[in-house]
Amino acid sequence: MERHQMDRGTYRVTFEPEGRSAFVLGGTNLVEAAGQAGIILNQPCGGEGTCGKCQVEVLENAPEPTAADRRHLSDAMLADGWRLACQLTVEHDLVVSIPQGTRFFEQLVLTDGEGRKYPFCPNLRKTHVLVPAASVEDPRSHLDRLKAAIGNRHLQTDLRLVKALPSLLGDGDGDVTVVCEGDEIQWVEAGDTTGDLYGVAFDIGTTTIAGALLNLSEPAKAGGQTVGSRTNPQVHFGDDVVTRIGYAEKHADGLDKLRKRLLGALNEIVGEVCASAGIDPEAIYEVTAVGNTTMSHIFLGVDPTSIGHAPYVTVLREGVDVKAKEVGLDINRNGNLHVLPNIAGFVGSDTVALVLASGMMQQGEVVLGIDIGTNGEVVLGNSERLIACSCAAGPAFEGARIRQGMRATEGAISKVVINEGIEVAVIGGGRASGICGSGLVDAVAELLNAGVIDPAGRILSGEELDASLPEAVREAVVEVDGQPAVVLAGAGRSKVGGPVVLTQRDVREVQLAKAAIQAGIQVIATEFGVNLQDVDSVLVAGGFGNFIRRSNAKRIGLLPAVGSDRIEYIGNAALTGAKIALACRDCREEAEQISSRTEYIELANRPDFQMHFMEAMMF
Amino acid sequence: MERHQMDRGTYRVTFEPEGRSAFVLGGTNLVEAAGQAGIILNQPCGGEGTCGKCQVEVLENAPEPTAADRRHLSDAMLADGWRLACQLTVEHDLVVSIPQGTRFFEQLVLTDGEGRKYPFCPNLRKTHVLVPAASVEDPRSHLDRLKAAIGNRHLQTDLRLVKALPSLLGDGDGDVTVVCEGDEIQWVEAGDTTGDLYGVAFDIGTTTIAGALLNLSEPAKAGGQTVGSRTNPQVHFGDDVVTRIGYAEKHADGLDKLRKRLLGALNEIVGEVCASAGIDPEAIYEVTAVGNTTMSHIFLGVDPTSIGHAPYVTVLREGVDVKAKEVGLDINRNGNLHVLPNIAGFVGSDTVALVLASGMMQQGEVVLGIDIGTNGEVVLGNSERLIACSCAAGPAFEGARIRQGMRATEGAISKVVINEGIEVAVIGGGRASGICGSGLVDAVAELLNAGVIDPAGRILSGEELDASLPEAVREAVVEVDGQPAVVLAGAGRSKVGGPVVLTQRDVREVQLAKAAIQAGIQVIATEFGVNLQDVDSVLVAGGFGNFIRRSNAKRIGLLPAVGSDRIEYIGNAALTGAKIALACRDCREEAEQISSRTEYIELANRPDFQMHFMEAMMF
Repeated sequence: MERHQMDRGTYRVTFEPEGRSAFVLGGTNLVEAAGQAGIILNQPCGGEGTCGKCQVEVLENAPEPTAADRRHLSDAMLADGWRLACQLTVEHDLVVSIPQGTRFFEQLVLTDGEGRKYPFCPNLRKTHVLVPAASVEDPRSHLDRLKAAIGNRHLQTDLRLVKALPSLLGDGDGDVTVVCEGDEIQWVEAGDTTGDLYGVAFDIGTTTIAGALLNLSEPAKAGGQTVGSRTNPQVHFGDDVVTRIGYAEKHADGLDKLRKRLLGALNEIVGEVCASAGIDPEAIYEVTAVGNTTMSHIFLGVDPTSIGHAPYVTVLREGVDVKAKEVGLDINRNGNLHVLPNIAGFVGSDTVALVLASGMMQQGEVVLGIDIGTNGEVVLGNSERLIACSCAAGPAFEGARIRQGMRATEGAISKVVINEGIEVAVIGGGRASGICGSGLVDAVAELLNAGVIDPAGRILSGEELDASLPEAVREAVVEVDGQPAVVLAGAGRSKVGGPVVLTQRDVREVQLAKAAIQAGIQVIATEFGVNLQDVDSVLVAGGFGNFIRRSNAKRIGLLPAVGSDRIEYIGNAALTGAKIALACRDCREEAEQISSRTEYIELANRPDFQMHFMEAMMF
Repeated sequence: MERHQMDRGTYRVTFEPEGRSAFVLGGTNLVEAAGQAGIILNQPCGGEGTCGKCQVEVLENAPEPTAADRRHLSDAMLADGWRLACQLTVEHDLVVSIPQGTRFFEQLVLTDGEGRKYPFCPNLRKTHVLVPAASVEDPRSHLDRLKAAIGNRHLQTDLRLVKALPSLLGDGDGDVTVVCEGDEIQWVEAGDTTGDLYGVAFDIGTTTIAGALLNLSEPAKAGGQTVGSRTNPQVHFGDDVVTRIGYAEKHADGLDKLRKRLLGALNEIVGEVCASAGIDPEAIYEVTAVGNTTMSHIFLGVDPTSIGHAPYVTVLREGVDVKAKEVGLDINRNGNLHVLPNIAGFVGSDTVALVLASGMMQQGEVVLGIDIGTNGEVVLGNSERLIACSCAAGPAFEGARIRQGMRATEGAISKVVINEGIEVAVIGGGRASGICGSGLVDAVAELLNAGVIDPAGRILSGEELDASLPEAVREAVVEVDGQPAVVLAGAGRSKVGGPVVLTQRDVREVQLAKAAIQAGIQVIATEFGVNLQDVDSVLVAGGFGNFIRRSNAKRIGLLPAVGSDRIEYIGNAALTGAKIALACRDCREEAEQISSRTEYIELANRPDFQMHFMEAMMF
């Protein structure tokens, strides 16, 4: 009996080209129906029928055109079934094609320029419904009445929710909000909570963790500008992933300790971004995370041992969906965690996120992406083919293994220029207490140009220096701890602390790091069959706090010698990718494709890598 | 690099008409590939190519016919792509149509006659594979190598299994058995355990619980003859579901207590059938269960309160899949529980199982199914339409509310015949200690025929009895506790215990019970628009230990007056349906359709029910 009622009043609206369907009650507006199917339409006028932007093509059962339809659409279009979605009320089963121009696209700005556009279609959506009480005339089950109120009989759910239904629907007024994830009902809440729908995207770096809060309730609010970060507290167990894998391997509770440290920091960031935005952590329903493969494994409690030994295999490559509660995230108790897929043991989901954020896989142009963090990952390709490798560059550009290296924070020399003397810019403007990645690149490049460092990377001795060099520069060349060094910022400039020097060993570290990256790039370019000069664009992501000067990065060979207009700094592309995956469910599928399609080159197995590496040691 | 290897060696075989695909390594036999897709083929000769029974039509990429193909198939068939599956080795992507005649059908015998045939396609299947160790040449993830070994890249899994992979695949020889459920890897076990794959099907009655063990490893062994049963220990909290719902409602821990009692009995039965069959409970990977709606709710820990009050709605109608561990079943720790869907508050999954077991929904003939247990459920229909109702018949036919009523166990009068005196058959052949359902039907029918009971159900007094009745019959009419009664078995026959009598109140109970069923049948027949005389067959399921005589059941009006050849006893059809759902994954989808398509008639709301009920009170 109830079945007939539903058949009378519920219609299936299928949206093309996705082929996705929504089941809605008669009288539902088509914009709403599309939203239910996860397709957000452009509606600048707010559904008044005045802007004419929400044009769709009704392929089956097009209703009579309205006056607003006639104002905005030609007779030919009307005859073909074109209508304004905001003026269309569903009264039949419909098949509707939604053109690209009618869709709402969130634009994610990677830097100052144009960013990648992606559809705003969060994995989770909330629907406020009134579930009628059961009656003699309508004795359907609690769950059947709930599904009918949502307008989709095909929703799945689990026993956990079913057990809660009697208290949610048994005695109350049926005024509830349903949280849906794809075709699954994730949870039901009392009252109208549609406004409370947030997510957090994480980039879990070996050294730094960053998290961004996104409002998932409507595209206009998505934002993601509320960001928090922490040093990864696992540094306590070692600076690099290999040391941490070793810790997990050697101690019975090692993996769990590493995991809990990380989790603590993630939960702190959740608390921090929620406090900044003035929202309750209960309003966070989903977390996405990217990171290098070891971080992802540890976060999920999966033993990373195999990543630490040849052949460096991962336990899993695919993305993972799991209840956030299961991994201990302090968000809504029914929330999800989606960890993006990785590519190989040393090319993680952070690289997948870079490819995702750049839109590389969507375009014909050949793009080179370089992510320089505690390690260096390089990916090259286009919509046809993607190749990635991991360069054992070491953390020199993050300041590690450099005598006075530091991260790009206050006191770091971030820029070096040699004119009459050595001039430096210091972050924060105070005294120089060390040097960060961009400063290192500048210093080495400028000293090379000045002839203080020779093409083999050797700091010349005082006698060898060209006599035409300004005296201040010549005087900067000193000896520190028995090795040649260059004083970049003298002690005299500040009341406290000694001078900041660049030692011969520091130059060798830079040389090794850049050679690893340069050789890696060369190998995958050869594999791809492209000359580096012909690469259409070079995207540089990573931990350089201030962006290095393109000319100097090219001078030392860190970046290929392409026109500077083709080099773009894209900041923390890993976090950007995690944010895109949070705001756009369909992009997760793209991430899976990036993961499975990207060919991984193990440089250690490539004879040509050694050759390129030796060549790249020269400046 | 590894991707190319996989593309070279893995082929997709699509089976029609299902459209289901299997991904198999080159060289795999087609019968195996079909099995992987859950389609079991007939192979009487064991794959020798001698019987010619495994004919399939290769729609795309048919290979050259073999000598065996040529022996068994005509040139025309060969030209059309017909081949013997057992002779076909997959070396390309294939599309293959499997005709019905080539499929293996398990036949479930409902009684002595022909039973319903269904495809043997368990939800779970095991595959023994050798997963190659990771190497420099094959650095794929543990999970990717596992999936490749299974030959299906599209398998899903969960974090629980991923966490276990390092110990399963990290150091071992990769010799493992994979347990798959549809497209999901449920678990991986060391070594070859393909022979250990069992399931248990349960019928959870209000009074009795029955469980059957099935071997799911191959169709020939399916069996299901190892059966155990227990009285439902919830009887401690009340005889009927309403009392138990009340207990759950009134006590904070009521639901949990009821659930745990039930669970204890189910686990005892698991232990018992495993002991009988000599297998380890760890080899049980799936349990299916049917029962009335209240039992299903309690078993799953879902509050049944709403079933106990008008409008008697259920919390959920659909079938449920849940980890067996989550509900506390002592089977393999990764095992599943599938509880079949119900129809309404008083028409449960046991009725769905009856429809499933009978194949009612598959045929054009109109079938009436009657399940007489602690309650009476009736379902009428065919492939076009199904209607069900619940008759508040009470448990008279299970012996309850009858002065000396008992279940059909030793000592129960199961048969009554009146000739020169009243003759009875007693189960076990010893003294009569009570009367069971079939005895009751016999007794009332025979006493009606003899004129001892009048059509209104009144036991005539001594003076009213026809003088032509044999003296022994006349003398049997006595007075017990101030009401008329008939002595069915005298005290004199036995050394201990008193006589077994049928009192006036007992006859009234039978009258009420049969009237409720008779009126319910009449209402749904009217609703369906069929005369009961035209029903093609009447299937009687339920707790009658020995089957009642058809003529007597018709005489008292319990069964409609159709030819006795159209009445069939089908035993515990609920358990049969649970067994079918265990052995045949596709039948679960049929069960969902039965649940959603069957129209439920609430007799209390039907004015015509009262009328039919009054009429049906007469014999």
